[in-house]
Amino acid sequence: MSTTESLDVREAVRSICAEAKSAGRALATATRATKDAALEAMADALVAHAERITEANAKDLDRGRENGMSSGLLDRLALDPARIAAIADALRELAALPDPVGEVVRGSTLPNGLRLRQVRVPMGVVGMIYEARPNVTVDAAGLALKSGNAVVLRGGSAAASANEVIVEILGQALETVGLPAEAVRSVDAYGREGAVELMRARGLVDVLVPRGGAGLIQTVVKEASVPVIETGVGNVHIYVDAGADIDQAIPIILNSKTQRVGVCNAAESLLVHRDAAAELLPRLYAELHAKDVTVHGDAASAELASGSPVAFAPATDDDWATEYLSSDLAVRVVGSLDEAIDHIGRYSSGHTEVILTRDTVSAHRFTTEIDAAALIVNASSRFTDGGQFGLGAEIGISTQKLHARGPMGLGELTTTTWIVEGQGQIRE
Amino acid sequence: MSTTESLDVREAVRSICAEAKSAGRALATATRATKDAALEAMADALVAHAERITEANAKDLDRGRENGMSSGLLDRLALDPARIAAIADALRELAALPDPVGEVVRGSTLPNGLRLRQVRVPMGVVGMIYEARPNVTVDAAGLALKSGNAVVLRGGSAAASANEVIVEILGQALETVGLPAEAVRSVDAYGREGAVELMRARGLVDVLVPRGGAGLIQTVVKEASVPVIETGVGNVHIYVDAGADIDQAIPIILNSKTQRVGVCNAAESLLVHRDAAAELLPRLYAELHAKDVTVHGDAASAELASGSPVAFAPATDDDWATEYLSSDLAVRVVGSLDEAIDHIGRYSSGHTEVILTRDTVSAHRFTTEIDAAALIVNASSRFTDGGQFGLGAEIGISTQKLHARGPMGLGELTTTTWIVEGQGQIRE
Repeated sequence: MSTTESLDVREAVRSICAEAKSAGRALATATRATKDAALEAMADALVAHAERITEANAKDLDRGRENGMSSGLLDRLALDPARIAAIADALRELAALPDPVGEVVRGSTLPNGLRLRQVRVPMGVVGMIYEARPNVTVDAAGLALKSGNAVVLRGGSAAASANEVIVEILGQALETVGLPAEAVRSVDAYGREGAVELMRARGLVDVLVPRGGAGLIQTVVKEASVPVIETGVGNVHIYVDAGADIDQAIPIILNSKTQRVGVCNAAESLLVHRDAAAELLPRLYAELHAKDVTVHGDAASAELASGSPVAFAPATDDDWATEYLSSDLAVRVVGSLDEAIDHIGRYSSGHTEVILTRDTVSAHRFTTEIDAAALIVNASSRFTDGGQFGLGAEIGISTQKLHARGPMGLGELTTTTWIVEGQGQIRE
Repeated sequence: MSTTESLDVREAVRSICAEAKSAGRALATATRATKDAALEAMADALVAHAERITEANAKDLDRGRENGMSSGLLDRLALDPARIAAIADALRELAALPDPVGEVVRGSTLPNGLRLRQVRVPMGVVGMIYEARPNVTVDAAGLALKSGNAVVLRGGSAAASANEVIVEILGQALETVGLPAEAVRSVDAYGREGAVELMRARGLVDVLVPRGGAGLIQTVVKEASVPVIETGVGNVHIYVDAGADIDQAIPIILNSKTQRVGVCNAAESLLVHRDAAAELLPRLYAELHAKDVTVHGDAASAELASGSPVAFAPATDDDWATEYLSSDLAVRVVGSLDEAIDHIGRYSSGHTEVILTRDTVSAHRFTTEIDAAALIVNASSRFTDGGQFGLGAEIGISTQKLHARGPMGLGELTTTTWIVEGQGQIRE
């Protein structure tokens, strides 16, 4: 791309963001009633225009097939009337959630009579960069709207045709309730260059949330000059303590690993105290074999696999560091809780870490000494989820420490302002 | 600096940060009693070693005089036993504040019996980059310690000799209560290169807080790859509405502008509704003249200055955008609240904005439509302050939207973790 074209893309993207910022001001003062009416109108419009959306989606699918996209990815990309109805229903569920805007976080009357309160207000403009699932386009627009924010979207190019139609439909629906169409915008037309400009639209984009694989998230963290919330990479460990309840541990490990393998809160590594290994591992291997899970284990875990039909490969250092997102599990036998904590400190991505134990001291140490967004005692790692935590809709799961950590609900798309009401007070 | 030297600096700074990270883990699990004992020990040690500190400070002052430092800056840099005692007392006051670590932010028992709570935990390593006031070295170390964090400091080179001695004394004091000296480190020995490496120590520094002028803060925001909290630039406006109580308005404006001129919550621009201008401005000019304030005004405000002895200069667009931090005030007469809101929207730095009004509609609109960390009705802008807000010690005043906005107390140096306690739950 020539320099002139780059400048044009920059100008176009900044102009879209500036229009979104202006639209955001209208959303910031919109009442909950108006925002909920907009969500209902968006849901209705998606259902009413389902045929247009599926036609555009068919073009994306054709292009995907030409480009040799896997059947799994094609399935994630595909839309039909039933899926569109489900996406629309998610917007209606958002309408039913409380409005985070206006919530008083804390407040007091100061000794000098000043009335002080800290109140949730929208961020302004939320940027979202995500991969090939067109439902995220609608989710992101709905979450931003409900929290009073405009949104600028950059979807995967594989879903570009459907996304273009969806953004147009959502904008028209906003206008039916008197809100500006510019509150939901896309920079998909500007390709990768447009995505980079979105990451650099400092002063126009208040927060950027990447949703996708580790590669996407690392690119955004590296390139962005706007504030970013990192989401979703989960190298999740389960540690089975000496004396753990093995009958309880096995279903928890299986659920954590196999209930859904391609998600960030699925378990990737199992650490077993050596006093629990002989009882746990042979039984677990049989269950893992039944679920077609391949074990990548250390020498001690290999010994206990002899005679088991489970698929077993010797673990390398790479295995400890890998978020498989597949039917693979790294297994290591450790000599102590300290060794488990050290291992997790070294390889954790700070998402979710699980301990299975009957010992209160072990549970306390694990939940105090390990640095992660979620620390789970005696339950499946799959519970780290906004819906499961009762937060309502989820924007993503933050693995960073600033602003939001763990599952992010609507409140995490807001900031706060301090409102101070006086009667003439001055400072002495 | 050669590439080899640059690599050496990078390695040295990263090694300091890694040691701080390791020390931070000890602080994260330290009890409040231990941390408060450390603060008391630090205070005692500063007083006991006051002579060593003043000797080092004398070297900084000599160097400052040689470099032609202004008398005002020399005064800010100077330490004597009384100032050292005051700095030590600030540490003792920190000890008296509640510990933010362990605070349960929210929690519930989920329908499946999981016990869920979101708990404040330390960030890990806090970086601070600041200018020539050695008291900030102690403040930053104390705030970080109380919130369970290690700190890596980069102070102004003008205070390098005193800072070196202070960091050594604080580290020794930590060891007397069994905490690692590495929890308080400095990269001052590595100059500007060291500061840049601190900004780029991703994965080792959890949050970086710059404290100083706009130039320093912009450099940090631009160069840093670690998460940053922007602080302190305040282009603060006061808007006087039609029908405002002029007898109340004048002391508020004077207090906001003149109680302390060099601080971020001092007023810089005054917007006056045209229906209030004729009554307000002549009286205000007389008071501003008495306080040696220069007015930079538009044409309408100039007319009302005729015959007044106040120093008056015609305002340019630069005046609207300038944070004077001096005895200067930009003045503009506006036709409506809308015009005031537009002006503030264009020139505000998002710190503090004040409205003086008797009209509930104006107060509501101002506090809803303006995007700033603090919105004050009928009181001085100088109240935007952690101490005034009752937050205890203040790290700085955030002008960004992510994580913290407005005055930041100890809680803003923490993040949260979700602790989930189960009895064998798996996800359906």
